[in-house]
Amino acid sequence: MSTTTHHITQGHVDFVGAGPGDPELLTLKAMRAFEMADVVMHDRLISDDILALAGKTARLVDVGKAGFGPSWKQSDIDALLVETALTGARVVRLKSGDPTVFGRLDEEIEAVEAAGVTWRIVPGLTAASAAVAGIGQSLTRRGRNSSVRFLTGHDMKGFADHDWAALARSGEVAAIYMGKKSARFIQGRLIMHGADRATPVTLVENASRPDQRVLVTTLDKLPTDLATAEMDGPALTLYGLAPRDAAQALTQLNKEFA
Amino acid sequence: MSTTTHHITQGHVDFVGAGPGDPELLTLKAMRAFEMADVVMHDRLISDDILALAGKTARLVDVGKAGFGPSWKQSDIDALLVETALTGARVVRLKSGDPTVFGRLDEEIEAVEAAGVTWRIVPGLTAASAAVAGIGQSLTRRGRNSSVRFLTGHDMKGFADHDWAALARSGEVAAIYMGKKSARFIQGRLIMHGADRATPVTLVENASRPDQRVLVTTLDKLPTDLATAEMDGPALTLYGLAPRDAAQALTQLNKEFA
Repeated sequence: MSTTTHHITQGHVDFVGAGPGDPELLTLKAMRAFEMADVVMHDRLISDDILALAGKTARLVDVGKAGFGPSWKQSDIDALLVETALTGARVVRLKSGDPTVFGRLDEEIEAVEAAGVTWRIVPGLTAASAAVAGIGQSLTRRGRNSSVRFLTGHDMKGFADHDWAALARSGEVAAIYMGKKSARFIQGRLIMHGADRATPVTLVENASRPDQRVLVTTLDKLPTDLATAEMDGPALTLYGLAPRDAAQALTQLNKEFA
Repeated sequence: MSTTTHHITQGHVDFVGAGPGDPELLTLKAMRAFEMADVVMHDRLISDDILALAGKTARLVDVGKAGFGPSWKQSDIDALLVETALTGARVVRLKSGDPTVFGRLDEEIEAVEAAGVTWRIVPGLTAASAAVAGIGQSLTRRGRNSSVRFLTGHDMKGFADHDWAALARSGEVAAIYMGKKSARFIQGRLIMHGADRATPVTLVENASRPDQRVLVTTLDKLPTDLATAEMDGPALTLYGLAPRDAAQALTQLNKEFA
């Protein structure tokens, strides 16, 4: 855990976005932070391909919280992060996607800051960007939607009736993170507020990874199609979007031309 | 414009996100597409540092549209893109940030697709991610906002009264692209719908670039502070967020520890 080559004497934490899964969607800045790390504390969903990019001497620590039942408490992660940095280590706290989007980043920054440890955010590509690219669409489009919302199926308490009403209008687009378990609830609220049952909904499981799967459905059929699809991986729900052309999107878009 | 080394015979277009400005925030996938390009057609806002990363034999074409008075019509860009690809060239259509977010991507894809040219989207880091990282904050936070909106000051016609009302609630966060000229209008709508005049608003100009500037203000003072600041570069307006700690955010976050 020597830090002599890094010119750091007091430890440091980089909160790094690992992107949606494809190691090629890491930024150069994330790669550099990663290569310099003494310790990499990562979430459960980070792929082995990405973890393999860490420096050979880096220690990997899995602080993943399994789906809906936390195996690590947030307070334990905060404490370990601080404790590790205070040994003088350069720590990369690696989070899926972009740490600033549904990443529970603030708790960890506050803990690190309270301990007097320096820190930095290295932003990453969020899952919505990869998912929408994978179906050949845009999150926004002139004449269709001049705004897009990111919301999470994990925490819909703050989403009020007028939010649902606004989303229920024709042409609206939303990227719903962790929306699988809330699919029936989301469907119910949107239909109650007047959404067209034929509104396209596309789920992208494991966006950007070799095992990416795309489920093309409608608001009406969302819960039943989702149950049939048996998606085990993380999935991004794109409300209001269908793949541009199913055949092209599913077979060609991710093909490499190198 | 030989494509023999790329195993492409019919031309191809990669719609590539250049990220917010810092070349280190390009993805590895974008870099690879860039290095293989015969022709790079880029927007005006792409920095020279990024353009310098193109292969030595690549031809650079600036199809930038200046601020509010288009120097290139969208239809001209579409036509040149198709024409160039049909010569057999591998074209990178390089757009600032993420091409799927306010990137006018769809028109170009439709033109390319109509001509039978293959294409792919290589997503990029959107300005909101870089801007919020630069002030040490998150776009979402448990207990504060469980959703975030991206909207554009260029096209607010689709933004209805209930959208403004929803945004006016305490704790809401929005990333407003190209919002400088609409600042007074946005302020007016939000206050009319009950927003607290003391709501924090932070503008990040040239996010992630060496000339990044941060303007910390409130909804009340937004138009006047913005006029005083004389921001010429592209700016992202973060509604509902203040820098975590002004001193740390402005002086340390972007410091390199390498």
